[in-house]
Amino acid sequence: MAELENPQSEKSDPKRKRRISDSTIYRISQYHRLLHVLEEEGVKTVSSKQLANRQRLTPAQVRKDLSFFGAFGTRGLGYPVSELKSKIAGIIGLDRRWRVAVMGVGNIGSALVGFKEFRNHGFDIRLIFDNDQRKIGSKHKGMLVSDIQNLEAELAAEKIDLVIIALPVSVAQLIVDRVVACGIKGILSFAPIHLEVPADVIVRSEDMSIEMEYLAYSLTRLRN
Amino acid sequence: MAELENPQSEKSDPKRKRRISDSTIYRISQYHRLLHVLEEEGVKTVSSKQLANRQRLTPAQVRKDLSFFGAFGTRGLGYPVSELKSKIAGIIGLDRRWRVAVMGVGNIGSALVGFKEFRNHGFDIRLIFDNDQRKIGSKHKGMLVSDIQNLEAELAAEKIDLVIIALPVSVAQLIVDRVVACGIKGILSFAPIHLEVPADVIVRSEDMSIEMEYLAYSLTRLRN
Repeated sequence: MAELENPQSEKSDPKRKRRISDSTIYRISQYHRLLHVLEEEGVKTVSSKQLANRQRLTPAQVRKDLSFFGAFGTRGLGYPVSELKSKIAGIIGLDRRWRVAVMGVGNIGSALVGFKEFRNHGFDIRLIFDNDQRKIGSKHKGMLVSDIQNLEAELAAEKIDLVIIALPVSVAQLIVDRVVACGIKGILSFAPIHLEVPADVIVRSEDMSIEMEYLAYSLTRLRN
Repeated sequence: MAELENPQSEKSDPKRKRRISDSTIYRISQYHRLLHVLEEEGVKTVSSKQLANRQRLTPAQVRKDLSFFGAFGTRGLGYPVSELKSKIAGIIGLDRRWRVAVMGVGNIGSALVGFKEFRNHGFDIRLIFDNDQRKIGSKHKGMLVSDIQNLEAELAAEKIDLVIIALPVSVAQLIVDRVVACGIKGILSFAPIHLEVPADVIVRSEDMSIEMEYLAYSLTRLRN
């Protein structure tokens, strides 16, 4: 968490833009979500305190996060809900739709295809791939399963922006290399290995074990 | 059973215990994973630089993280792999096994039951629950699906430590309330809502959309 551990260096660093920490981005996503709920409830303004309470943060943290992106509340009134929401949406790239392909229709790939939240947040799964001949050409939750051998042509034809890797460890790197060669710059991986990619490609690993480890760690500390 | 802890730094600062950031914990989990791989490869020592490279961190960050937990490398030699691995395992509670119940055998719950990585990291799924009469009593990937109406008795009988919520939004809070009333202190939730729990219960939300948003955000910034 760069901005908590190293507040000085960020302020003095002109490359600040690149150094917004992951934690800040997560919190910003959460604010966006909360603002969406408030907007639907017809709430017009929200205080940093209200934004903080829902996430067990301090109001100071919320103000700091939002000021980082140039959003400032009005003392006594708070932040305008809709305006702040669109501002954040613009910042985090949620003011457009993203075209997504899923590699692998196993347990996790399957779950993702049925995951409505993706669509609600602007991510449209356009293609799903597998290498299993029994799956290729069949419909899976309403989507046709493509042959992973043809990924290059299909990713290009569908103008895919982001790729999700839901493949076994043994083939994940191989497929990632091919995906990267197609010019894809954003990958979410469920394969529990370190994936090698060029410096201009962003890989996020969704490692459910890590969340479990976090819980284990928290409980271990609570008990000691 | 005495867990490996880092008595030194924690005794010197009683508040410090609470102030380790989420990001640090994630990185620590990653170091643990990497050390496990190195140990299996027969590597005896590792430098902060090697630990850093795999995760695109700086060696200084790695040294800082590890020193926080009282682990210090030897200049020119680095860290002893096995010793550091067990030390970290003790800190993050991975020197024991954790008993887990999964609430909901839908898309995500199903994927989790088949997810071998959990077991590899010390998490044993002991119970799976659903409210669908067609699923209750049937076997799902070798496990019997229990009736969620009986969760209190079953969680107690199986001495469950951690609960995973893979339920629709509409019932998630209700089930969480019942789980918390059973004394469960650690919950991993896949339900895309904010769950209310007492202050001594830890909820981690696994929100796959957030990782996608992170990618969208990164690409948006790269392009701007």
